Order: sequence, then C-alpha cells, then structure tokens
Amino acid sequence: MAKDNFVSQIADIETDFPQWYTDVVIKTKLVDYGPVKGTMVIRPYGYAIWEHIRSELDRRFREMGVENAYFPMLIPMSFLTKEAEHVEGFAPEVAVVTHAGGAKLEEPLVVRPTSETIIGHMFGKWVESWRDLPLRQNQWCNVMRWEKTTRPFLRTSEFLWQEGHSVFATGEEAEAATQQMLACYAEFCKEVLCMPVLTGRKTEKEKFAGAVATYGMEAMMHDGKSLQAGTTHYMGQNFAKAFEIQFTGREGTLQYGYTMSYGVSTRLIGALIMTHGDARGLVLPPPVAPYEVVIVPIAMKKEGVLDACRALADRLKQAGVRVLVDDSDNSPGWKFNEWEMKGVPLRIELGPRDIEQAKMTVMRRDTLEKTELPLGSAEEGVSALIKDICASLYRRAEARMQTRIVNAGSLDELLRAVDGGNFVRAGWCGERACEDKVKEFAQATARVIDEREDMPTCVCCGKKAKHTVFFARAY
Amino acid sequence: MAKDNFVSQIADIETDFPQWYTDVVIKTKLVDYGPVKGTMVIRPYGYAIWEHIRSELDRRFREMGVENAYFPMLIPMSFLTKEAEHVEGFAPEVAVVTHAGGAKLEEPLVVRPTSETIIGHMFGKWVESWRDLPLRQNQWCNVMRWEKTTRPFLRTSEFLWQEGHSVFATGEEAEAATQQMLACYAEFCKEVLCMPVLTGRKTEKEKFAGAVATYGMEAMMHDGKSLQAGTTHYMGQNFAKAFEIQFTGREGTLQYGYTMSYGVSTRLIGALIMTHGDARGLVLPPPVAPYEVVIVPIAMKKEGVLDACRALADRLKQAGVRVLVDDSDNSPGWKFNEWEMKGVPLRIELGPRDIEQAKMTVMRRDTLEKTELPLGSAEEGVSALIKDICASLYRRAEARMQTRIVNAGSLDELLRAVDGGNFVRAGWCGERACEDKVKEFAQATARVIDEREDMPTCVCCGKKAKHTVFFARAY
Repeated sequence: MAKDNFVSQIADIETDFPQWYTDVVIKTKLVDYGPVKGTMVIRPYGYAIWEHIRSELDRRFREMGVENAYFPMLIPMSFLTKEAEHVEGFAPEVAVVTHAGGAKLEEPLVVRPTSETIIGHMFGKWVESWRDLPLRQNQWCNVMRWEKTTRPFLRTSEFLWQEGHSVFATGEEAEAATQQMLACYAEFCKEVLCMPVLTGRKTEKEKFAGAVATYGMEAMMHDGKSLQAGTTHYMGQNFAKAFEIQFTGREGTLQYGYTMSYGVSTRLIGALIMTHGDARGLVLPPPVAPYEVVIVPIAMKKEGVLDACRALADRLKQAGVRVLVDDSDNSPGWKFNEWEMKGVPLRIELGPRDIEQAKMTVMRRDTLEKTELPLGSAEEGVSALIKDICASLYRRAEARMQTRIVNAGSLDELLRAVDGGNFVRAGWCGERACEDKVKEFAQATARVIDEREDMPTCVCCGKKAKHTVFFARAY
Repeated sequence: MAKDNFVSQIADIETDFPQWYTDVVIKTKLVDYGPVKGTMVIRPYGYAIWEHIRSELDRRFREMGVENAYFPMLIPMSFLTKEAEHVEGFAPEVAVVTHAGGAKLEEPLVVRPTSETIIGHMFGKWVESWRDLPLRQNQWCNVMRWEKTTRPFLRTSEFLWQEGHSVFATGEEAEAATQQMLACYAEFCKEVLCMPVLTGRKTEKEKFAGAVATYGMEAMMHDGKSLQAGTTHYMGQNFAKAFEIQFTGREGTLQYGYTMSYGVSTRLIGALIMTHGDARGLVLPPPVAPYEVVIVPIAMKKEGVLDACRALADRLKQAGVRVLVDDSDNSPGWKFNEWEMKGVPLRIELGPRDIEQAKMTVMRRDTLEKTELPLGSAEEGVSALIKDICASLYRRAEARMQTRIVNAGSLDELLRAVDGGNFVRAGWCGERACEDKVKEFAQATARVIDEREDMPTCVCCGKKAKHTVFFARAY
C-alpha cells in the first residue's frame, strides 16, 4: 500500500459528518463492507475494541450472578408466533432458512433476530421450582435483522451482541433487575467508553416487541443526534405464558415466572466513534483502545533508539499498559498522522536526544497537547495521563450534552432545537398521536421519558403533560 | 428438582459407552437438546469449559502473531463454487437462507460451514504487497453443517469453533505454518486438556475439501475409538487463485499468495469427556474445569463451619483457584455424588473436627483418593494436587493409548485389533481402493499417516507399502 494512500483525507467532521464517519471507520481499518449487502467485516483493529467491551461487561455481569451459555441460532418459525407482539415486531426483518442438507425443511427456520423465544422455550424446560430462581443467563453471539439502510456498526443485517435473559419469581424482582441492568450499562458507558448517557423508560411506541416496559440509554453524538446504546426489557409474564415458564412456589402452587432481558451490541463501537472523534479521526477511550500507547522511534536507525523504545514498551507492558512500538519503515511524521487518525490515546516519541536526557515526549490524542516526561518514571507518568484522558473525554462529552439539552414548549421550538443539533425536553400528553406528530413535524422521536416531570403541557396538543420526554433525531 | 432425581443412574461405561456419554452430558447439565433436530444448547457448566478452552488457545494464537476478526456468517452461494473441490465437499451439508426481510433473495445465501471462501474474498481485497504478508487472522464463531446423525458436542448442525486463516508469500512458509499450528494444538491438548493425541498428515480421501494437504490430531476415547480433535490445512494457491489473493513481491512482480487454515471446535469438550470420564461420570481436567475445587461443609449448621469454608474459599481464590462452596440444603453425601458426577477435580470436606484440628480432607476426583492436608498451607497443598492431577490424567490416557496401538499385517489382524478397541498401525500402498476396502472390511478409517515408515507391505493388497498409517474406528 502506497504511503500517500494511507494518510488520505477524511471528510470534514463539521460539514459532512456522515461521510466523516464512513471515511474514519473504513480508513482506520476498523471495518470493511462484506460481499452481501448490509453486512460488515469487523477487522482486527475494530474487533479488539469489541473484545475489550466484552470482557469489561462480562466481568460486571458475573458479579451480578449472570452465567454465560449458548443457544441455537436457528429458531422454528412457529416460536416467533407464540408471542403476538413479538412476531409482529420481528417477522418483517428476519432471514429465513428454508433448505438444509440438500432438502427443503418441513418448517422454515428463522435466524435469530433476538432469542427471547428459544431461550424462553429452554427456560420453560429447566425451571421447576422456586429453588431454580432467579435464573440469569447471557450469551455473546451474532444476530440478524434484515435492514434496508445500513451503516457499519450502527445498523447492519448481522451484528454481534450480548443478550441476557432472566426469570424471577416476582414481577417486582424482574422489574428491579431491568432497572439495575440499565444502571450497570450506564456505569459501563461512563467508566469504559467515557461516554455519558441519558437513561429512562421508553414510550409504548418505542418499546421492544413483546415487552411490558423497555428502558433505554441514549448517547449524544457529535452532530447532536441521539444513538440508542442499549436497552433492557421487563416482560412481565408475556413470555413466561407463551413458553410455559412455570415453577412451584415455596407454598407449593404452580405459577408463571416473570422475565426480563437486556442487550448491547457492536453498535457501541459506532457510539464511541461518534462521541469522541474529531477532525483528525478516531479518539479512542483508553479502556477499549487496542493500543493505549504507541511509541514512535525518532531517528530509528541510530544506535540504541529501537532498543530504548522496546525497553520502554516492555516496562509499560509490565505495568499493564497495551503498547505498540511502530518500527515500520515509514517516517515519524507519517506515523504521527496514522496513529492520530487511528485514535491511539497516547503517543510517545523517543529519539537519541530524549534518551540522552532521560526523557520522552508524550502527546495525548484528546487534546493534542505535548508534554515531556522523565523516562525513569514512565509507568507512573503514562498511567496518570491515561487516567486523565478518561476523565477529560467524559467531561467533554458530558458538557456538550448538557449544553445541548434544551426545553421546548411548542412544536416550532422543538423543531428549531433539533435543527440546531440539540436534545429537547418537552411535555407530552402520553398520546401516540402527539408522538407521531412530533416525528412528522420535526423528524424527532421520543428517546426516553425523563424522571423529572417539570414540563406542564404537551408540546404538541397543549393539553396537560403526563411525562417530560427527551425528543431527538436519532440514528 | 427432587433430590433423588438428580443423582440418578448413569449407564455403565464399559458395557454401554454411547448411553453413558449421553447420560453424562445431559445429567451434569453440560448441554441440552435444542428444539430443532440436531442442535444443542450449551448450558453454563458446559459453556464455562468452552470459555477456558477459548482463552487458553487464544493466548497461544496471539503469541504466534494471529489477530482476531469477525467475518459475515452468510456467504453468497456463488462463492462456494469458486473452488471446485470445496463446493463438492460442503454443498450437500449447508443450510441456505432463501428469504430475508419479507422477500425472496436474488441469490441464495449459505450459512457458513467454514469461511475459507468469504475470508479469501476479503483477503483478496486487502492484500496488495509483500509488506502485508504474512496475514494471520482468526475468528471465534458459530458454523453450521447439516448432519444426519448428531450427538451433543461430537456432531451437531450448529457448533462453535475457531477458524484461523493465513496468507503467506511462499508455499514453504504456509506449509510450515500448517505444521506449526498442528504442534500448537497438540501441545494445547496435552497441557490444557491433559489429553494425548496422535498427529500426522491425512490421506487424500480424508483431507479438507479444497486443500493440498490436511493434518490432523486424533485422540483415543475410552472405548478405543478415535476422535478427530482438530485439523490444519495447507491450501497451496487453490484459494488464492479462486479469490484473487495477489501481492506485489519485493522484486515488483504480481503473484498469488499461499494460504492455510486451521480449526478446533466444541467437539473438544466431547473429546475430553470421553478421554477422562469414568463410571461415576465426568472427570474434568483442572485447566478447563468450571470449578477446580468444591468445598463441602460438614455439619454445616454448626457455628463457624460455613464461615471457615468461605474463608478457605477466599484464600484459594486469592491464590487463583476457581472454587465453589456448596452451601445448598442438600446432605454432604448428596453433594459428594453430585460433584463427583460433575467431575470437579478436587473436593474439600471441612467440618467442626477438621477446623478444630486445623486440617481438611481432600478427595481427588481422578483417583478417588482421600488425604488430609493442613489448613494452614491449603494454597500450596491444593495447587500441588491440581498439578499432580493434570500430570496423572495425561499419564493415564497416554498409557491407555500406547498399550492400545497394535501393528497389523493383514485385514484379519486389523479387524481383530479394532474390534478389541485398538488403534492399528499398518502398511498402506497409497491406493484409494485399499483404503476403501479397509473401511468396508473393518469399519476403520485412515486417521493419520505415521512419520515412521516401518510397515513394509500394504495391509490390504500386500504390495509394497508407501506409508504406515494409523487406522481406527472413529467418531
């Protein structure tokens, strides 16, 4: 690959954000388009981010008593129809296996768009007594939803995710677990993706097909649009009744369980790109960056330089830092550009003069600030900077979101606000017609219901508001 | 679940090994049958084993420079046909998506039975120059092969695996990598599964569809049958030519790369069960056991017992041991049976008298031997025992395999030997007709070609032998 090919232009982030996104994800080799329309290949640089997301979330799930398992990908079509709303929501976008092993199947099989039905079926088989509850299982897997308009990470026909499914003896426990998992997700977004989110209940229109209540977390992207970053669903007894998840209670009576589910996907990678990225490309949050530090040797051919770089890398690795020495033939300037575009949180430059003076030059990607640090305490220096980058990325995103949440009392105000790249807080009467009208008028949807109820009248019909809702244009 | 249900009978391992296997995998909750014929649900106790296998192998791959990625699951049917042998081998067993998003697809899509074609397509896009080589990527994913006769872990329509795919500039490098990965697999089997394997090249008949050469590792199961535990494939330029994987060499000419691939699957779980299991059920190798140690409190209600058990568990966890305190309401005897069936490597019994005497009773699952160890040095005692269990499991399996490899000079000798549950070493002329005849006569197949060539005549036709081959009945 020719050098001048690599550090090519990315579209301007302010004037053409959609193209900026496409340029960034493709040129930094996070992802590529698959041969089938709407599919993506997650390349090593992108997959490493997913692996960090997975291991960080997985640890949190385990601490909450969740166990991992794996359920079959193909679901009998008849399962989907057992829960009326569920089939209505998912049937239009499933991929269907009709032939296998050289013959037509008796019953078509659906590639899972989500696994409530097949997991409900198995839970119905496994749950017998109150002693088996709560039952909390999770799987990391691929799912498929046939989408018309697709974009890498944000919306693709196949994507990777985790889906957790639990059964509880009471509705209170299941509902509490639904909110607890939402809080877990939000904390994860803050601590691992350095990304603030708004959390809250979804409206009836926006809820999961088959749920009693859906809760979501929404993040504000660079362009002021909202991205749904994860959802948790309280199912009541809907799926328990459809799949006979029954248990004998302490008092000896047979009763239906209460279920809940929750999921986040490779979409989170899109979210962090559009939250932190800047004109030069990716800005990766350190906890999920494939490399937290890249060391660029200066005057690499000079004796001792590469050795010093490698020795420094070894020390940082010992200290638990993910570090790469870029010993390729490219010039330092080329390497600077490349790793800036690829969003590595810290760049260390180390040359003969640095080595002589026992120092190193460090550039942080978030602010592009350069500082000199003593080589002798590189571990402490680097780890303090990484910590600061995390805090600073979060602060910056949080400040942007807070200054871009505005209240609106009328549809015109709402439209102006979303046109200006804001989230809008507005009163809502609770009627679907008003929600639809907001969508039609301003291309904005109800993202989540705010816990505060301080907007007195519906932004659409002017009647008494039932809730205060965050409206936004959304990915 | 009633107590007497749980510790139910397992079929006799010596007289009905197939039923023993089914009983063990179902009753220990490793796995359950999925609703679609031939599918399995991997339950948490089984999935934890897979997670250990994955993390141990993944670490080894990374050390060899392999990067993880993720490729789309649906492959255009036309891709399969680009490599003539490949389509012949896999077309009969693929599952096909014909409809998606509510409409019939223009081209049917195949659920990946393996990903040589789609990865070849992407590699063809990515590889441009010798600087891009070697290219080594791996994915952990689900694959699907529609099988007529299925058994949990051993043969199911969907299974989990890893598939590694690499491109090299020369055939020598690709061929060397194929053998190097086989050695990596064999070492993994020894160190992590405590399972000896025979390794070697496969015959033309047994090789991967589209490969120049396939190498395999074979393990001897309890019943003397062989199980193919993993394979590596040298493809030459077959897939490079089919998918235009071309690079500009150092000297400036455009040339085709050489590819290789390798894979192991959830089948390894079946292999370790049938290698180490005994009349009482599972015997899990410590490196992949969900719990290495279970602590059973004796006289649990007595003051201080449960606290002492938990304190001991905390100490062992600190020392990196995976440990569970069974504080359920069941009797100690019931717990002993349960955890023996579930194959936990070490059981610690701790009761009031033990605590008083600052000792603990330890039973190792492999030999069922009980010993007393001082509580004060529990960490050292437990870790020494775990190490010894690993060595002892391997030794036992290795001894069984070695005593059950016999040489045969005629078809009758070969038949008697495999009837007796042996692997057979025999000369082979290299002709497919003789290989087929051995299969027909003794239901034994050529597992791998031995490196030694000490059998002078073909076991079938009596002509000069080209190779010495391991024949066996196989799963």
